Amino acid sequence: MDALLSLMSSRGAESLTVRNVAAEAGVSAGAVQHHFTTKESLLVAAMTAVDERFRERLRQRVGRHSTARERLVVFCREIACVEGPDLTDAIVWTAFAARAATDPNLRAHHAAAWAETEAFMLLLLEAAYPHSAVTGDDAALLLAVTDGIAVARAAEQNDRMTPVRAATLIDSALADLDRRARPPADPTAH
Amino acid sequence: MDALLSLMSSRGAESLTVRNVAAEAGVSAGAVQHHFTTKESLLVAAMTAVDERFRERLRQRVGRHSTARERLVVFCREIACVEGPDLTDAIVWTAFAARAATDPNLRAHHAAAWAETEAFMLLLLEAAYPHSAVTGDDAALLLAVTDGIAVARAAEQNDRMTPVRAATLIDSALADLDRRARPPADPTAH
Repeated sequence: MDALLSLMSSRGAESLTVRNVAAEAGVSAGAVQHHFTTKESLLVAAMTAVDERFRERLRQRVGRHSTARERLVVFCREIACVEGPDLTDAIVWTAFAARAATDPNLRAHHAAAWAETEAFMLLLLEAAYPHSAVTGDDAALLLAVTDGIAVARAAEQNDRMTPVRAATLIDSALADLDRRARPPADPTAH
Repeated sequence: MDALLSLMSSRGAESLTVRNVAAEAGVSAGAVQHHFTTKESLLVAAMTAVDERFRERLRQRVGRHSTARERLVVFCREIACVEGPDLTDAIVWTAFAARAATDPNLRAHHAAAWAETEAFMLLLLEAAYPHSAVTGDDAALLLAVTDGIAVARAAEQNDRMTPVRAATLIDSALADLDRRARPPADPTAH
């Protein structure tokens, strides 16, 4: 799995051949072929590995935070690949998205994962804004923001989308939800 | 150019070989090699073709609208690939983003194009909200939204991101800017 992700993030999805994975992992081609019979199965395995790493990191990081608003911020930052200099997940995710666009089988995996991610985002939003009518569209909009940031981080790797700016944009998107959630000022109060 | 884009959107960036392009265009491999000596030059040519199509469509569509707010909406919808059922541009753009993540030369092209797109988005925002202090971060946030939508449209191709929902999310992102641009209600007015 480490060899798969290392190859994908340094040389792209097209480098995922049995021969390259074997060389990267320091094992025989036969050992790789024993587990993966097609190139597509290598891609699906890499996708699953990234997904598991992502969930494990979330479990560790989300657990440290006590408020629902803080957990929402952590989730958004993880999807947008804001924490740390490692762009592996954003690069691998962008590669999957590109492959999913032209491969129906990978697309089914990708679409299922993203439907689940949107549903989880909605749960986090409902917990963070219990007195506000958040909707699926709010979750989809926030997911579009974080996905757009992740792609920019992976594909540009320059000053247009630094971790600091990415975090600022996420805060700005959440500030709009904060404003909507705040009850209107009471004009009779002093 | 048509053959390049047709191949990329149906079979992915990895299908861009001299042999495939020649077959798709109905010309000899030599004719293709006369213009493109490397696989990367095929990719850059496809990227440039998508960019030119995008600009030409913008010129036609933006010209029909009279207000700056309407022109901003058209621009966002074009980037997000909301108009029409043709996902070619979103698919080709996602493929470039994925390639740019691991190819420094393509990355330079991609990053330059996106820096320019953000600058143009800021000009449109300044025109649409002349009395509000819009910033580069507002442009970057709106671009993240529209890019995130485009990737979802290309990579999932299902009901999670229909054209109607995509347009709703763009409207929602712009509604936040509308709210900020509106002067606060005068508490002394009746």
